[in-house]
Amino acid sequence: MPTQMQRARAGEVTPEVAAVAKSEYLPAEEVRELVAAGRVVVPANIGHKSLVPMGIGRALRTKINANIGNSTMSSCPREELVKLQNAIRYGADTVMDLSTGANIMGIRQQIIAHSTIPVGTVPIYETLARANGAEHLTPELIMDVIRDQAEQGVDYMTIHCGLLREYIPLARKRKMKIVSRGGAILARWMNDNNAENPFYTLFDEILNICQQYDITLSLGDGLRPGCLADATDEAQLAELHTLGTLVQRCRAAGVQAMVEGPGHIPFDEIELNMKLQQKICDDAPFYILGPVVTDCAPGYDHITSAIGATMGAFHGAAMLCYVTPKEHIGLPNAEDVRNGCIAYKIAAHAADIALHRPHAQDRDDAISDARQEFDWDKQFSLALDPDRARQLRQEALQEAGKPADSEKHAKYCTMCGPDFCSVRISQNL
Amino acid sequence: MPTQMQRARAGEVTPEVAAVAKSEYLPAEEVRELVAAGRVVVPANIGHKSLVPMGIGRALRTKINANIGNSTMSSCPREELVKLQNAIRYGADTVMDLSTGANIMGIRQQIIAHSTIPVGTVPIYETLARANGAEHLTPELIMDVIRDQAEQGVDYMTIHCGLLREYIPLARKRKMKIVSRGGAILARWMNDNNAENPFYTLFDEILNICQQYDITLSLGDGLRPGCLADATDEAQLAELHTLGTLVQRCRAAGVQAMVEGPGHIPFDEIELNMKLQQKICDDAPFYILGPVVTDCAPGYDHITSAIGATMGAFHGAAMLCYVTPKEHIGLPNAEDVRNGCIAYKIAAHAADIALHRPHAQDRDDAISDARQEFDWDKQFSLALDPDRARQLRQEALQEAGKPADSEKHAKYCTMCGPDFCSVRISQNL
Repeated sequence: MPTQMQRARAGEVTPEVAAVAKSEYLPAEEVRELVAAGRVVVPANIGHKSLVPMGIGRALRTKINANIGNSTMSSCPREELVKLQNAIRYGADTVMDLSTGANIMGIRQQIIAHSTIPVGTVPIYETLARANGAEHLTPELIMDVIRDQAEQGVDYMTIHCGLLREYIPLARKRKMKIVSRGGAILARWMNDNNAENPFYTLFDEILNICQQYDITLSLGDGLRPGCLADATDEAQLAELHTLGTLVQRCRAAGVQAMVEGPGHIPFDEIELNMKLQQKICDDAPFYILGPVVTDCAPGYDHITSAIGATMGAFHGAAMLCYVTPKEHIGLPNAEDVRNGCIAYKIAAHAADIALHRPHAQDRDDAISDARQEFDWDKQFSLALDPDRARQLRQEALQEAGKPADSEKHAKYCTMCGPDFCSVRISQNL
Repeated sequence: MPTQMQRARAGEVTPEVAAVAKSEYLPAEEVRELVAAGRVVVPANIGHKSLVPMGIGRALRTKINANIGNSTMSSCPREELVKLQNAIRYGADTVMDLSTGANIMGIRQQIIAHSTIPVGTVPIYETLARANGAEHLTPELIMDVIRDQAEQGVDYMTIHCGLLREYIPLARKRKMKIVSRGGAILARWMNDNNAENPFYTLFDEILNICQQYDITLSLGDGLRPGCLADATDEAQLAELHTLGTLVQRCRAAGVQAMVEGPGHIPFDEIELNMKLQQKICDDAPFYILGPVVTDCAPGYDHITSAIGATMGAFHGAAMLCYVTPKEHIGLPNAEDVRNGCIAYKIAAHAADIALHRPHAQDRDDAISDARQEFDWDKQFSLALDPDRARQLRQEALQEAGKPADSEKHAKYCTMCGPDFCSVRISQNL
């Protein structure tokens, strides 16, 4: 069965492409051309039945991804489904199951079955978990895992295929070495086995599987900088150039591909990073993690990174991988997922408005009208997180000693009260 | 007694200017020239004895301001001192007492006495509170309030002197009309009294008082846009042009002045807004509120606005007025003050790094070293909010069923656990 990319090249507007075009307010023919050129991907494993199709690319609305999944230290399958629910409820466009702990296959099966949005994975995690010790990790096991995940319906897979053995010395010079889990695992494996990166050597075989299931490859950045001091360095750029050549191999095989990006980047280097990727990777969709713009705010990295993500999306990033308040500290729980998603919806939405995407500002205009009219219910129902907004108003009213019911239709809030409310005063101008 | 600006023009490096230069890693002579030119202000009322001098200007480290103060609906003097403590603790460079409720003078006296950072006010608030009804508001009462506040030791005052009567029709056309409290109060007064803005007509008398106490004027933006739809519109720009002329009148009188800016601005218009102000106001320090980059995230406006604030500071804003999660909802409490301050420290710090200010990245490099070494204590003590970081780690350990003590020196966290920790794995490369 041909992939979305192959069908687009053949001139076919697939139902998936038609659905993407409609949701993006774009002509279907334009989206078809973008998919054919590899500038838009539509991650849709032929086996993922509950999926609602969506597209990722610089020409489309900015997307956000939420990472969920357990770790070897924290694990509860039910909690993972709550995280999935929160991710979808608070606006994630895709979700990655990064489980590394118990029952990876079972958790993923549940997530795919319940997910209406594309599900991504990082197969090296399950490979290492199955290997039961890094020394037992083999290329054969990697291929087994990829095949199993493909069969399960995974829509896109991150593989760290651009981290060549010759780049490891570049990473050794860094303050934070390698902070990508996949990158670190592979670098150690290459060192221990005196061998090239198996994802690179097995690339054609992997492409075969991806073609068969129409899995989108997400070419991972195993050498993404882990602190500002390492940003935009030789290691990062060397890997990016390799990813650029691999994008062309994906396209030649009819396999959809996006490219992953950093990480930790000073605010003034974000535009440069986006433009470099577009150039080097021939405008394959750029899927960035943050970037965080300062290293020194653990506990608030959803904010440090939403700042970088907005700037990244404004300059062409296609999808933003969220960062939660727990980043650098511990495994996110369901509430962290919520906070991460909202911070990233803000970033993506702010960039879409700034890029003048069709209808991007409609919701803002509607909420401003509701605000001007003191229609609290409407204002909150239009909010990215209605529950949080309502809860904060409740809290403020309680602190002012006012029962919420009495203030339901109040034409002011506790910040200014009736006599100092600018909106109220200026309504009578 | 001459003002800092007048003394700088006379060639004197005052103790205040020397202190600012030292804290900014700049030559004292350079700072003196900037103060003389009006490109840096040093808000320091001669009566504010507990003040540690600081400077605000595009050539200096980006500053942040925290708004505190009660409202007619919520009031507790002790809570205001807790807010002040939180503001200073979490990095505010100045604080504004925006009280509009009970005992304004008493609260302000307490705040000034306890504050080591400059204290700003908006005198029209106390004027309206004293007038006991907008119809009793008079120019004489405004001058009385300004004199009393000057005597109390207020370091800078926001006056909405650029909102001329002729601009009111421009505001009527807007979706959100006038969202500045001071702006709305004055527009109504002008309408009701068929008279020009008293802050404009009294400007020379106000300058006299400011010269006498060396109060810095913060030329307020009564017509700042209150939603994206109103951004960078005719009303906003008309007022900005008037503020530009008033900057020159301040300078002629030897009075230090900064200019206030918006508000709600789409991300792509922020650079433009910063450059316009620099041009029109001859590089007087720009003190901006946010700006928020989307209207539709009530409950998260510390994030929507920290994104805009970073972009603003990167393009030349000198001071960022924080926005808390309660914006558009209710009066911030002490915890909101904390969250607002940290979001804005992140914005200011990220911009300072991006602008390559001296030593801006030192803290980031140190925390990255601590992170690489798994020195949790050092990492957290270098964090912008050590308590929050520690609390989140505690939470993550509890969820993993690990007692915190046992993990004190753990070379991993619950996100990845020991086998998947990239930092741990790559240390052995």
